[in-house]
Amino acid sequence: MSTPVAIGIDIGGTRLRAATVAADGSVLERRGFETPARDENLLVEAVGDVVVELGPTLPVGVGIAALVTPEGIVRYGPNILVRDVPLAVHLGEVTSATVTIANDASVAAFGEQRAGAGRAREDVVLFTLGTGIGGGIVVGGELLLGRNGFGGELGHVVVCDEGRRCPCGSRGCIEAYASGTALGAIARERLAANDEPSLLREVGEVRGQDVSRAAEAGDDLARGVLEDAGHWLGVAAGTMANALDPELILVGGGAARATAPILLPAARRALASGLIGSPWREPPPLELAVLGDDAGIVGAALLAAERHARVVA
Amino acid sequence: MSTPVAIGIDIGGTRLRAATVAADGSVLERRGFETPARDENLLVEAVGDVVVELGPTLPVGVGIAALVTPEGIVRYGPNILVRDVPLAVHLGEVTSATVTIANDASVAAFGEQRAGAGRAREDVVLFTLGTGIGGGIVVGGELLLGRNGFGGELGHVVVCDEGRRCPCGSRGCIEAYASGTALGAIARERLAANDEPSLLREVGEVRGQDVSRAAEAGDDLARGVLEDAGHWLGVAAGTMANALDPELILVGGGAARATAPILLPAARRALASGLIGSPWREPPPLELAVLGDDAGIVGAALLAAERHARVVA
Repeated sequence: MSTPVAIGIDIGGTRLRAATVAADGSVLERRGFETPARDENLLVEAVGDVVVELGPTLPVGVGIAALVTPEGIVRYGPNILVRDVPLAVHLGEVTSATVTIANDASVAAFGEQRAGAGRAREDVVLFTLGTGIGGGIVVGGELLLGRNGFGGELGHVVVCDEGRRCPCGSRGCIEAYASGTALGAIARERLAANDEPSLLREVGEVRGQDVSRAAEAGDDLARGVLEDAGHWLGVAAGTMANALDPELILVGGGAARATAPILLPAARRALASGLIGSPWREPPPLELAVLGDDAGIVGAALLAAERHARVVA
Repeated sequence: MSTPVAIGIDIGGTRLRAATVAADGSVLERRGFETPARDENLLVEAVGDVVVELGPTLPVGVGIAALVTPEGIVRYGPNILVRDVPLAVHLGEVTSATVTIANDASVAAFGEQRAGAGRAREDVVLFTLGTGIGGGIVVGGELLLGRNGFGGELGHVVVCDEGRRCPCGSRGCIEAYASGTALGAIARERLAANDEPSLLREVGEVRGQDVSRAAEAGDDLARGVLEDAGHWLGVAAGTMANALDPELILVGGGAARATAPILLPAARRALASGLIGSPWREPPPLELAVLGDDAGIVGAALLAAERHARVVA
């Protein structure tokens, strides 16, 4: 039996998932329940309880779908309705070990780099596709969090100035072109714009998963939406490849697997076409992440375990 | 009198500049001549001679306007006509100390971070505006070079998919919107498109510096070109700020100072408007770099000195 090195907790807008994690990233004992996203006290209590249950002497890593400061204050997340919660301080009251809190996509990138698709790579960029788009960056084996802890917000890499309106209020972010929400919106616009036959005409309010499903069934309009989204994702990946020259670019998140068969080839073409330095380098591989829903838990736990080891060293 | 810690050499398409540099980044003894950019043997010989002259026991840092591998092979630069030159190996024959070679804008970013506008900051992003646009990134106090050494190519951050044609062959890169070359091209297009009066109508083939000069004289068309270029630069800066959350974003290079009075305010507005996480953070300051033409020499020398210290430690 593997020994747990830390607790990893992934706080999403709807589900809170926690587990003890071994040094190799394998997930041991799990817990999961609905996120009490509307009430700070309930949220803090729920996270505290799960730590006490899983092992109050273990380092605790939390990934949360929100902006988090380096001190572990949860500032804001579009689906996390609490604001400015000093979660690290609260958790410090229930555990004697290190508490580390960061954005969920950032810790997912760390998880993939340490124990997933990026194992043995030092420089990894992850885009997470879901309702929105998040991201995480590992440089030289270290998680990049930036001055305010807000680094890795790759959903807001611009692909077209003055382009589609993004939920962030700005325009032209990749999130407005390739998130699950964007896939649904773009499909609805195209259905309204012409009479092209499509399976999606049977669907009431078309959403991202309807587009993936129809594309898988061979629907041309749906495939076109995914191909274009893949192109734009590849443009964003090209920007990051030119800026960071990473070893590997990963695509993860809830919407990644279903969209990958069409999205990834289109993204790879755009990435190769936008990359500087050809023929003196190959484009970095653009691959599906492998840890799935566990990326956040694993990454948060391994980050906490490493930071704890540095503190006690 | 300060003691030199290394030799810094900046190889541009037209000028080769070299100097000994002190630990605080001050430039001591200088050399400069025309770059023998067309002939590998002449280039290698010229660089070797300057090292022997300035101090063959000092670590040597070279910044060159080209793609450079981590092993110090100069792959390609649009204005450096040699290809695949193992410059580090050649220089190893004339110096007993560490030789470090990297892209000129990358070492300039390192120079600014260690001894210029970014002193006391850990995370700095530099855009260099000249004929083209280059860049460099310092993360956690370390120069980011990436897997192939090609990191920091910020001229090829995309601001508009399928937008203006970039010299790199791709479309929509910031270099196609805000380089000196782009300023001239955009001004010429606008002059041709309408009859708006402009000082630039007196100029034969309008170039970037003509645009800055006319803007300084109050010319509306020229000011509009610079404002739009500043907006696009701010969009690119916003992408990098969302991705990296740096402490500081600098604008340097030969075209920076003349364009800054109009370019920087417009860029700051676009950066603020595209930044995620407001009001929980201020936009990173977007400032003019301070080392001017010496940034490459200083950065290359300090990088070589630090690497040498690590090797001998």
